Parts: sequence; C-alpha cells; structure tokens
Amino acid sequence: MMSNVKKWSAEFLGTFWLTLGGCGSAVLAAAFPGLGIGLLGVSLAFGLTVVTGAYAFGPVSGGHFNPAVSVGLVIGKRFSASELPGYIISQVLGAIAAAAVLYLIVSGKAGFSGVGGFASNGYGANSPGGYSLLSVLVCEVVLTAVFLLVILGATAKRAAGGFGGLAIGLCLTLIHLVSIPVSNTSVNPARSTGPALFAQTGALGDLWLFWVAPIAGAILGALIYNALLSED
Amino acid sequence: MMSNVKKWSAEFLGTFWLTLGGCGSAVLAAAFPGLGIGLLGVSLAFGLTVVTGAYAFGPVSGGHFNPAVSVGLVIGKRFSASELPGYIISQVLGAIAAAAVLYLIVSGKAGFSGVGGFASNGYGANSPGGYSLLSVLVCEVVLTAVFLLVILGATAKRAAGGFGGLAIGLCLTLIHLVSIPVSNTSVNPARSTGPALFAQTGALGDLWLFWVAPIAGAILGALIYNALLSED
Amino acid sequence: MMSNVKKWSAEFLGTFWLTLGGCGSAVLAAAFPGLGIGLLGVSLAFGLTVVTGAYAFGPVSGGHFNPAVSVGLVIGKRFSASELPGYIISQVLGAIAAAAVLYLIVSGKAGFSGVGGFASNGYGANSPGGYSLLSVLVCEVVLTAVFLLVILGATAKRAAGGFGGLAIGLCLTLIHLVSIPVSNTSVNPARSTGPALFAQTGALGDLWLFWVAPIAGAILGALIYNALLSED
Amino acid sequence: MMSNVKKWSAEFLGTFWLTLGGCGSAVLAAAFPGLGIGLLGVSLAFGLTVVTGAYAFGPVSGGHFNPAVSVGLVIGKRFSASELPGYIISQVLGAIAAAAVLYLIVSGKAGFSGVGGFASNGYGANSPGGYSLLSVLVCEVVLTAVFLLVILGATAKRAAGGFGGLAIGLCLTLIHLVSIPVSNTSVNPARSTGPALFAQTGALGDLWLFWVAPIAGAILGALIYNALLSED
Repeated sequence: MMSNVKKWSAEFLGTFWLTLGGCGSAVLAAAFPGLGIGLLGVSLAFGLTVVTGAYAFGPVSGGHFNPAVSVGLVIGKRFSASELPGYIISQVLGAIAAAAVLYLIVSGKAGFSGVGGFASNGYGANSPGGYSLLSVLVCEVVLTAVFLLVILGATAKRAAGGFGGLAIGLCLTLIHLVSIPVSNTSVNPARSTGPALFAQTGALGDLWLFWVAPIAGAILGALIYNALLSED
Repeated sequence: MMSNVKKWSAEFLGTFWLTLGGCGSAVLAAAFPGLGIGLLGVSLAFGLTVVTGAYAFGPVSGGHFNPAVSVGLVIGKRFSASELPGYIISQVLGAIAAAAVLYLIVSGKAGFSGVGGFASNGYGANSPGGYSLLSVLVCEVVLTAVFLLVILGATAKRAAGGFGGLAIGLCLTLIHLVSIPVSNTSVNPARSTGPALFAQTGALGDLWLFWVAPIAGAILGALIYNALLSED
Repeated sequence: MMSNVKKWSAEFLGTFWLTLGGCGSAVLAAAFPGLGIGLLGVSLAFGLTVVTGAYAFGPVSGGHFNPAVSVGLVIGKRFSASELPGYIISQVLGAIAAAAVLYLIVSGKAGFSGVGGFASNGYGANSPGGYSLLSVLVCEVVLTAVFLLVILGATAKRAAGGFGGLAIGLCLTLIHLVSIPVSNTSVNPARSTGPALFAQTGALGDLWLFWVAPIAGAILGALIYNALLSED
Repeated sequence: MMSNVKKWSAEFLGTFWLTLGGCGSAVLAAAFPGLGIGLLGVSLAFGLTVVTGAYAFGPVSGGHFNPAVSVGLVIGKRFSASELPGYIISQVLGAIAAAAVLYLIVSGKAGFSGVGGFASNGYGANSPGGYSLLSVLVCEVVLTAVFLLVILGATAKRAAGGFGGLAIGLCLTLIHLVSIPVSNTSVNPARSTGPALFAQTGALGDLWLFWVAPIAGAILGALIYNALLSED
C-alpha cells in the first residue's frame, strides 16, 4: 500500500518532468538557429517525459501526470474519485514548479528580453497556425479521447505486460505530431497551466479551454471504452 | 471469446486513429513554416498509430487496421475469411470518419481555402515525386509484401512475446521513410480511401491502385511466408 | 532444427529488407525538396530494418543480415564456421536483389537521368564529406567492432530477454548517425555490394574496403568480447 | 560474481561508446550541409549509446558510464562507495579514448583546419546559446537530478523488468532535447572531460562546472528518491 505522500510526490515529480522536458525543449531548442529540433523534436520530448516517468514513477502513483487522465481513469473504473483532489493538486503544482525553473534558465540567456508565448496553449490568435476555437476544441477533445482509449487499452489485464509505458508515452508523441500547429497541444490541463502563468501573450485568457476540452475528451474516451471495449 | 461488436469497434477505432494520426500529421504539421515535421515526422506518426493501436486495441481484434493486412492474414492462416467483410467495412468506415474529423479541424484554419491533396495517395501527376504507375505499383506491392512477412514473423509462436506491436508499427514507419515520395505511401486501402473522398486533386481516380497493389502485395508476402518461413 | 533453406531464405529476405529500406530511404527520401528526411531519417530507416528483421526473421536464422556479423559471431563462438558460405551468399544475393528493385522504382521518376551514387559507400572522392581512406578505415573498423560488442552482449544469456533486436537495430541507427558523412556508413559488406553494382560514381573501385574494414572490425570486436566480457 | 576487470572493461567500453557515439554525431553529422541531423539527431545518438550500452554492457557492470551516476547510485544505496575509484577512472579513460579516436577520424577530412569546440560543454561564451553560468548550473543540476530519479525508479524492484535500459537511454535523449542550447548538455563529467582535452575554445577552463553540477544534481536526485519514493 503506497502512502499518499509517495503518490503525490510521484505525480508532482512526473508532471514537473513532463512540463520541464516538453515545454523546455520547445522554448530552448525548437528554433535553435540552423540545428533546431522543430516540432518533431518537441513531440518526441513530450512523449519521452511520459515514457521515462511511467517506468520511474508509474509503479508508485500509476503515472497519470495529467488531471484529464486522472478524471478519465475514474470514469474507466481504474482510479478512485476520492483520490482526485490530491492528484490534481500535485500535478498542477509540479507543472508550475517546472515553468518556474524553466523561466529561471531562460532568463539567463544573453540578450534575454522576455519569454513570449513560453510554450503555452491557445486558440485563434494564440494558436500557432491560427486555428479557430472550434478547431482547437474538436482537436483537443478527440485526441484526449483517443489518449484515454490507448491508456485504458494498453494497461488492461489482457494487454502485453510492461509495454504500457512505452505505448502511452509514444501516443503523446503522436498527439503532438498532429496537433502542435493547432493548439500547441495540451491534452493536459496541468501542462497548460504552468506556462500560462508566465506567458506574455494572454494565454491565461485561453486557459479555460485547456481544462474543459481535455477533461471532456478524457470522459468521452473512457465512456467509449466502457461501452465498446471493456473486459467485463 | 470476443464479440463481433467489440472486434469491429476495435478495428474502426484503430483505423480511425491510423488515418487521423498519420494523415493528420501530414496535413497539419509536415510543412509548418520553419519548424515542420517533414516526411520523417509523418513516417513516425503513421508508425506510432500502429504501435499505440496494437497495444490498445490489438488484444481485442488482433489489430489489423488495414484490409490488406486482413487479407494477408487469411492467406497466412492466422485469420478466418468469414470475418473479412466485418473487418474491412469497419476499417473503411473508421478511415472515412477520421478524414471527416480532420477536414473539420483543417477548415477552421485562418485563411483556409481548400484541402488540396489532403494526404491522399497517387501515381504519376499525383505522386509527390512524379513517379510512374509502374514505380508506384512495384513499390506498394513489395513494401506490403515485406510488411506481411514482418507481421507474420513477429507474431509467430517462436517470436519474442510482446514485441510484435513495436516491430510492426516501426515497420510502418520504415515503409513511409522509403516511399512517401513515390506514392505518398498507402500499403493500406482503408487509409487511402478516407482522404481520397475529400481531396481536390483527383485522388479518387487513382484509388483503385491502392486497393489492388497493397492486397496483391499482402497475398504475395503471405505466400512467401507460407513457402519459406512457416513454423509447420 | 531449422532447415538450411529456411535459414538462407530468412537471411536473403532480411538483407533484402536492410538494403531496400536503408538505401531506399536514402535514394528516394533523404533530399526530398523541403520535407526530406535527411541523414537522421536514413539512420532511423537502417536501424528499423534490423529491428523489424530481427523480430520477424531472427527466430529462423539468428538475424545476421550482414557477412561481417556472421564472421564476428563465429569468432564469438555463437555461430558455426561451416554455415558461413550459405549465409554470406544469401546475404549478398538479398542485397543485390534489393538494389535491383530500388533501381526499378527510381527509374520511373519523371525526368530520371541516372542513379548517381545510389547510396553506395566510398572514401576520398566518394566519401560524402571528403574523408580520407584512413579516416574511413578507422571509422568502419571501430564502429563494426562496437556493433559486435553490442550484438554479443545484448544476446548473451545474462541479457534481458527479447530486447536484443531492439538494442541491435538501434545500434545500427546510432552507427549511421555518426558515420554517414564519413563513409556513407557500411559496417556491412553485403549492403555495400548491392548499390555498388548500380552506382555511377566508381563505387565498385572502393568496394574492397567495405569488405575488409567491417570484417576486420567484427573480428576485433569479437576478440575484445571474448577477452574481457565473455560469460565463461 | 563479476571480476573487477570485467566491470572496469564494461565501464570503459560503455563510456567510450557514449562519447564516440554522442560527440561523434555532433562533430561529424549535426551540421552536414542540407541533410544534417541537427540537435535532434545528436540527442537521439546520445540516448542510443546508453540504450545499446545498457543491454550490452549493463549486465556486467550495471551500465553507469558516468561518474555522476555512480556517485548518485552510492547515495541511493545501489552501489558501493568502495567501487567508485575503479569505475570513475575507467569511465574517464573511456571518454578520453573516444575523443582521441574521433580526433583521428575528423582530422582526415578534406580541408581539415581544427576541431573547434569539438562537442565540449561550456557556459557563457562557450554555451551554444549564450546562457549564463547560473542558467547552466541550474539546468545541469536539475536535469541530472531527474536523471537519477529515473534511473533509481526504472531499476527498482517494483519496476517493469527489462525496460530500464530503454527508459534510461531515452531519458538521456530527452535531457539533450532540452539542454544542448544551454550547456551543450553534460550531465556526465567523463563525457565532458574527453572532448575538453581536444577543444580549441577554452573548454578546459569550464570543465570544473561539469564535474560539480552533475555530481551535485545526482546527489540531489538520489536524496529526493530516498526521501520520497524509496521502496523501504
């Protein structure tokens, strides 16, 4: 029986790592002159935060690192609703701590003059490719729904043991490969909250959508799983 | 014993994901200014749809997500011909649904003026690199044949348990790394059908080839496997 | 007990796939305008030919796909010298068949005017970055030696079961990430022989080095393994 | 019971491979005209040195390849302090040998006129993106701390067997995706020492930081693990 402190620590550290690794790669390395990692590198980075976090912290807390995932797992009957508050608070605090550390690193760059968007999520004017609120909503809902289908399927009893962390992390890479141009990719309200507190582009005004859409998508995905694919 | 509804749902969802993830990355992110994921990112995306789908939906339906694969598995004696209609219909419907969702997202981009090729497959004038019908035919037949060899080999009883989904998904990445310039890479008639319904470049007129060549290649691969590599 | 025909078929098919997938990605996709996969994509492609081939064909033949590997495994006492001729002939024929199929595909490109280097290996004037014979020799010997250390180590009895194919394939990706600019990366005499027969750049004159250096490196690696790391 | 010679050999070879593969990809291939692998390819290369080394050499020595990791594992009670000197000496010698081999290869390039930074680590003027000493210090400490959390977590008894090498290697890829622009990424004093001996940019003067920060970070990570996540 894991203690709550251990679980909350694992969720804090895992979400810290997801936000620092993913948003850090975007802010520091995506557009490095001539050699930058681009959206492909950022997509890989986000996925690898989950691959590494799943194997390192997953055995302690289940490795959610994402309030939408925690909610979806309640709907999918893999997680108790009574544990939601502790998990979500830990996740959001981890993401905020990561954004603060990233801010500290970035601000030491020669000629630093502000963080700009700081890898925050947005729609309309704050969408990297100028996508509408409706496009962003559809994209975030559908991708989070599939994310939950993959999470619930790859960690089911009938699934191949041990491969869940790899499949789920690489699913997050895939989600980013599709949707960074649309919404800068959230599917994770905690990851959206940390950078929004530091961004200079009005990201806080768009933040509501990146709580609503991922959580709605996670619930949708879990309901589809329960209806069509469950092991019962 | 899985119910047919579960199996068809898994094939619908897996092919939906393959088409949305693969074609979505191509349409939305491949040529994003300055930071685009390019053909490498699209190749990775297609492969990861299968890696993730194999671990999530594979335990339910076997994880075909592709009519050519279903046909090849019949020839390779791993799947019953009587199940082909239900599987293929589910796969094609999943791909069409994915193309529709992608259309909805893309059409919300600022300044949207049409989807163009929409990641459809083609030969001659519709080949990304201007390859002839013969080149495309050879390429699709050979690559689908090897795909079936890998699928049959990596899921044989003698193969390392659990790694099949990874090997098969990464095989699809590899196939795309080679052949996107030639045919935009099909090896999957369902994946070709969804986008062709929305493309503005006459892709429907080329669609017959992306049913004929992958299925012919899949049969060829399965026959080679039966003749030279089978466990009997 | 596998029959020789099965083993030779597996080595033929695996080396066919290695050459078609690796050299095919280089010839067809590396420099595709604006979206090309570059040396990173080619490196990934070569590695994935081995990842996929190892899981698909490895259980039949051991998955060498490379005369230098077969020789090194003899020195490392994992393979019988009496099997070398059949394996090496199968490997070379597979690579030649792949080069022929690739030639057929490439020649159907609009405006085709010759294959140029055709992903062949070379030194001096035929080195992609203009590296000397000595640089190429050192590079190929050292990298093939490490390749054998990884192969022997990752398939030892004490190693984690099942992960060998992944580690060995990704090792080939890594070798390419380092050395394409130096020699276009061989570490495999069969892979060098196929394209050299079709190249228009005098690659046949350099081919001797890509038999000598990889085999010397493989022997060196196996001797180091025997001396320092063996399980006896 | 492994002999010390075997363990030291494995650490020498593994760190040789880490430095040759990682720094080699950076020096030889990152900026190859038009097709270069960029920071993404270098990040992948560093990670794959550890993935391959972990499966090949890990069963012999534990697969540290890094003095900071060895120190952190002492704090995390997975490694004996009495073994530190032999391990660290082997690691540093391996990294120096790799830098020498890389120098030999590079010096055979047509028009060679010096190695420049030679993939060395630095801060201020020697930081790729011009980051301050404080930024580099924070970045290296935090990333090495998380690296140790991942190492300790992914190799704990409760973790999924066999996946440790994959998770730890891909963690190093992720660390590079974030921090090459900041410090050229060390998190490994041995990897920093080899190239610094050959660099023409004053890297030796910055080397102290890449012993202090990674070791401090590794100790910090291990202490956090002991306090919050340990299995006791």
